[in-house]
Amino acid sequence: MPLTPHFYPVILAGGSGTRFWPRSRRKMAKQVLNLDGDRSMIQQTVARLLPLSDPAKFWVITNDYLSAVIGRQLKGLPKRQIVSEPAARNTAPAIGLAAFILQRMDSNAVIGMFPADHVIKDEKAFRTVLSQGIKLAASGANMVVMGIAPTRPETGYGYIEAGEQLSDGLYRVRRFTEKPDQQRAQQFLSAGNYLWNGGIFVWSARTLVSAIREHLPKTAPLLEDIAGAWGTPKFRRVFKSVYPKCESISIDYAVLEPRSAKGEQASNLYCLRADFGWNDLGSWTALFEHRLANSPAAENSNVIEAKDNFVLNAAGNYIYSPKKFVAAVGVKDVVVVETDDALLITTREHSQDVGKVVKQLAERKLNKLI
Amino acid sequence: MPLTPHFYPVILAGGSGTRFWPRSRRKMAKQVLNLDGDRSMIQQTVARLLPLSDPAKFWVITNDYLSAVIGRQLKGLPKRQIVSEPAARNTAPAIGLAAFILQRMDSNAVIGMFPADHVIKDEKAFRTVLSQGIKLAASGANMVVMGIAPTRPETGYGYIEAGEQLSDGLYRVRRFTEKPDQQRAQQFLSAGNYLWNGGIFVWSARTLVSAIREHLPKTAPLLEDIAGAWGTPKFRRVFKSVYPKCESISIDYAVLEPRSAKGEQASNLYCLRADFGWNDLGSWTALFEHRLANSPAAENSNVIEAKDNFVLNAAGNYIYSPKKFVAAVGVKDVVVVETDDALLITTREHSQDVGKVVKQLAERKLNKLI
Repeated sequence: MPLTPHFYPVILAGGSGTRFWPRSRRKMAKQVLNLDGDRSMIQQTVARLLPLSDPAKFWVITNDYLSAVIGRQLKGLPKRQIVSEPAARNTAPAIGLAAFILQRMDSNAVIGMFPADHVIKDEKAFRTVLSQGIKLAASGANMVVMGIAPTRPETGYGYIEAGEQLSDGLYRVRRFTEKPDQQRAQQFLSAGNYLWNGGIFVWSARTLVSAIREHLPKTAPLLEDIAGAWGTPKFRRVFKSVYPKCESISIDYAVLEPRSAKGEQASNLYCLRADFGWNDLGSWTALFEHRLANSPAAENSNVIEAKDNFVLNAAGNYIYSPKKFVAAVGVKDVVVVETDDALLITTREHSQDVGKVVKQLAERKLNKLI
Repeated sequence: MPLTPHFYPVILAGGSGTRFWPRSRRKMAKQVLNLDGDRSMIQQTVARLLPLSDPAKFWVITNDYLSAVIGRQLKGLPKRQIVSEPAARNTAPAIGLAAFILQRMDSNAVIGMFPADHVIKDEKAFRTVLSQGIKLAASGANMVVMGIAPTRPETGYGYIEAGEQLSDGLYRVRRFTEKPDQQRAQQFLSAGNYLWNGGIFVWSARTLVSAIREHLPKTAPLLEDIAGAWGTPKFRRVFKSVYPKCESISIDYAVLEPRSAKGEQASNLYCLRADFGWNDLGSWTALFEHRLANSPAAENSNVIEAKDNFVLNAAGNYIYSPKKFVAAVGVKDVVVVETDDALLITTREHSQDVGKVVKQLAERKLNKLI
């Protein structure tokens, strides 16, 4: 697959990932953990994009807690393109800033926006779909959204309603939908033209800059000021003083939803139906299911990461204790995760509540554990 | 309570206690663990007997794995009376040897035999009953058994059927009963005259010596040879060469059951009904129940030994991870025990299967973990 010369992957890696506590911490968030295999989530994200772009074209937007470890994990990327936000402002200012900077550097720049912490099983299929998106974004004021073919009536994601079909796998976007309740999620799944919004977008820098100017008129000049300082000695100072004044809003709310309101034909919003084994690993339970589905020994219904282990009448458990001998006896559907200073014991059913532990730790000011 | 001058407590501390793995190991068996409070089980055993006997009169029968740690834990006891068996031969040779030695040292010696790893809540009541037993044992060829008032239809213990009542709490023994099935255990509980055999016996050295001679005619002369070498330089050598030739049999099977077959009147077997909050802590689940029953905050239905913890919708759990922050979220009735090299995850229902882990470790020759 040839490199696409004007394609710039921008990886958003500022998330705190409290749901993987106690492994995830402010300084060791989900995207830098080896949750699946021997590379971190962000290393896998970069690796699957490398066949499409030169390392020098990658950008990573992250925060002060994580920039050092990301720099160590992504040694091949230019250090100065691993950018630490002085304050978290959600995705619109982050990707918007990248667009303002890149537009000045390459007037034909096409930007792909990628979460740093998802897994994709079929990387080749991913790159095939993405290449289509890059071409489409390069050929006009088009905004391209990856629409992930749903496999279950998930209530935790936003959905994209696909409209007119233009070619195989390519649709106009009819509208974006908030997270549905169970009944609506089931309807979406049955309808067939609803796709998950996995947060992967492609557009030219020019298109995104003008969209930011249109939809975020107060934030656009701030981002322009910061972009103007890029590459000069005053950049850090300007970034630090100006960026926190930007609106804190997601690119979905700021740009994509208002744009879709212009109507399916006028919005220039396109959706590529993607079916490449995507998983956002939103919880320990999601990780368990992903690991089990990709296990060579699928009849073994436990996922145990340990020095060694013994299982007796135990099933459906996720256990992480990499330095120890683990014995699981008669236990079902639990999640146990051990680190040097903490031990989490929960169930597959309750693992989404782990964020509440972190909230509690913050309230009790147990900062070493966060 | 006055010291009873001819009373010698003999504590049997040779058990391997695999059911408290991973805390219990060959070199750190149940009796030397702090399972309940800040003293080990054997330290608690000695402490509750000290008001009745001088430290110089205590004997401990243990093994080479444990003698050093027991010596450190029981500094006040004479080192040479902490005796390491050269081979495990069950309780009859162990207590028999003590009887042969003590009979030579004090012809009026009364021996109490005590497991090293049980808890007793009401220590004063324990000593009151025991003092009665000592008097009875000192006054003739009587064998006195503690009969623990049962609190549930337990199938894991042997039972003593009490016969003729002689005074308040004192009965002749009608017979000893093997571990019953559930239905019989329920009948025993309803009948009212069945008591648990907790392995606490009192008799004079003279009575026990003659009983061993009668019921273990091959083993008695071996024990006599070893006792003859006690206090001489050749003791270790004789002990090591002769003791392994003794029959491996419990005092219950060897002496008490055959004796009871002589009939309730002729056997000279007596039973003291005891109700002092006894618990043999036979499993992690038994420890959980004991700890919960003795907790000042009984409405908290978890027992968590951790540096600090956070509980959210979790109940009925026993968790041991003393150096870590433990978070229990939505989990019910599990047992999790963490040590430096191992992590056990089981349930209250299955914790009696933990011995199978140790068996597996032995088969795999993972000796460091045993």
